[in-house]
Parts: sequence; C-alpha cells; structure tokens
Amino acid sequence: MKAGAILETVIYAADPQAAGRFYRDIFGLEEVRSVEGRFVFLRCGGQMLLIFNPEATRDPAHQNGIPAHGATGAGHLCFRAEDGAELDRWRARLAGAGIPLEHEQIWKGGARSIYLRDPAGNSVEIAEAAIWGL
Amino acid sequence: MKAGAILETVIYAADPQAAGRFYRDIFGLEEVRSVEGRFVFLRCGGQMLLIFNPEATRDPAHQNGIPAHGATGAGHLCFRAEDGAELDRWRARLAGAGIPLEHEQIWKGGARSIYLRDPAGNSVEIAEAAIWGL
Repeated sequence: MKAGAILETVIYAADPQAAGRFYRDIFGLEEVRSVEGRFVFLRCGGQMLLIFNPEATRDPAHQNGIPAHGATGAGHLCFRAEDGAELDRWRARLAGAGIPLEHEQIWKGGARSIYLRDPAGNSVEIAEAAIWGL
Repeated sequence: MKAGAILETVIYAADPQAAGRFYRDIFGLEEVRSVEGRFVFLRCGGQMLLIFNPEATRDPAHQNGIPAHGATGAGHLCFRAEDGAELDRWRARLAGAGIPLEHEQIWKGGARSIYLRDPAGNSVEIAEAAIWGL
C-alpha cells in the first residue's frame, strides 16, 4: 500500500489565532475552525493546515481521547508555486504586505524558493514545484 | 492570491534515517534523498515529507544560507484515505506489520481516523478525507 497524499500538515504557535490570521490574510487560506488559545484549522486547496498551541495539545487530559502531540521551536512548511511567474507574484504580494524575505534560494536547475517567517517564528517557504520534479 | 497547495510537510526526528525507513516501509513513500543524521526527504504523491534532525537544522552554520528551523516534542501529520474501505485496508496493513493503533476516532458524520506513532514519537493519523469535507 502507498499513502497517496498528506491530508493534514501541522505547525505550532503559542498564539494560534495570530498565526491563523497571517496564513488567512497573506496566503489566502480559508479558516475552517478556530478555538481561542488552542488551535486554528485552515484549508489550503485539497489539504489542511492545522495550527496548534503545543501547551494545549500536549496535555492528554485536554485531548478528549485524541493522541497528544506538541512541539516547540521553529517548524517549517512550504507552499507550492506552479512556476517562476507565480513565485514572482508571491514576492510582490509579500513586499506589498511589508513582510521581509529572509532568503532566496536558486536550486540546481534554476528553480527557486523564497523564505519568510510567520508570526510564531516558523520558517515558511514558497517554492516552484520543479525543485522536487513535481 | 491564494496558496493552492502545501508542497512540503515537515516532521522532526533525532534519527531521521530510522523514521524515514518507517515511512518508506509502512506507508510506501519514495525516498528521494537522505543524509545520515541530518535528513530524509520522501515523496508522497504530489507532495514531499521532509524529516529533519532538529539538532542539525536549527544550527544556522550548517544550513548553507537556508533559514534555520527545528522543533522538539511530538509532531503530528495525517495521511489521506479516500474512504472507509481504504482506512480498513490501512488498519489491516498496520496490524500485519505489528504496529499498534493508539486510537480510533469516529467523527461527527461517521468518517473515521486511526492513530499510531512513528519511531520518533510523532503522532501519525490516517483519516478519511471526508472528515474535512474533502
């Protein structure tokens, strides 16, 4: 058997609502559910981005039977850009929103990634799918 | 602008090679690149699962300009099952491989998730896409 897709990608933030607003406002994700101080769930195409406060989710007593988890420190995720033209539109979008780029990487073969930080300090990348041959 | 897809999902493991073998052997992911003690990159359909040793990636001196990141504690991710029949095939696959289920959740509406742990302690879920209306 092969898993065909990742349905939920998770990052952590001490203030999930602030992080959720960032992903909604900057990346256009659709907020599906939010519980103050605990989590925000957002839709990104056919996938979900779940943002949890690790102080809440790592406590089994507050998980209603759902297995506990919760990490601290900067996480990382990467959004897909179809091509270099879309990446350039994202660069303009971020500049217009006053969000500094931390780094730009030109990979072997010429496809590119740009990097920024979310309000919780997670490393956010936007990459041309070609960097993985996808 | 809207981000259309998450290209890279990240989890952390002190032994990324051991975790990588687990995702390759149990979930059928394709190993794309591996550097001992640092990372394993695996393909899952049109997405990538990146497994990093946070002790390595959080050190800017070893990142060659790529922004540092690295979290500790149990993370979480969820693979997509198309329907309940696929979820049942995963349950049988896990039982055959001797991997205990930590929990089964029946969500409102009847769609289900099953939960297990990877070798690094991350919480791995397999869920019917219907739990998110996807």
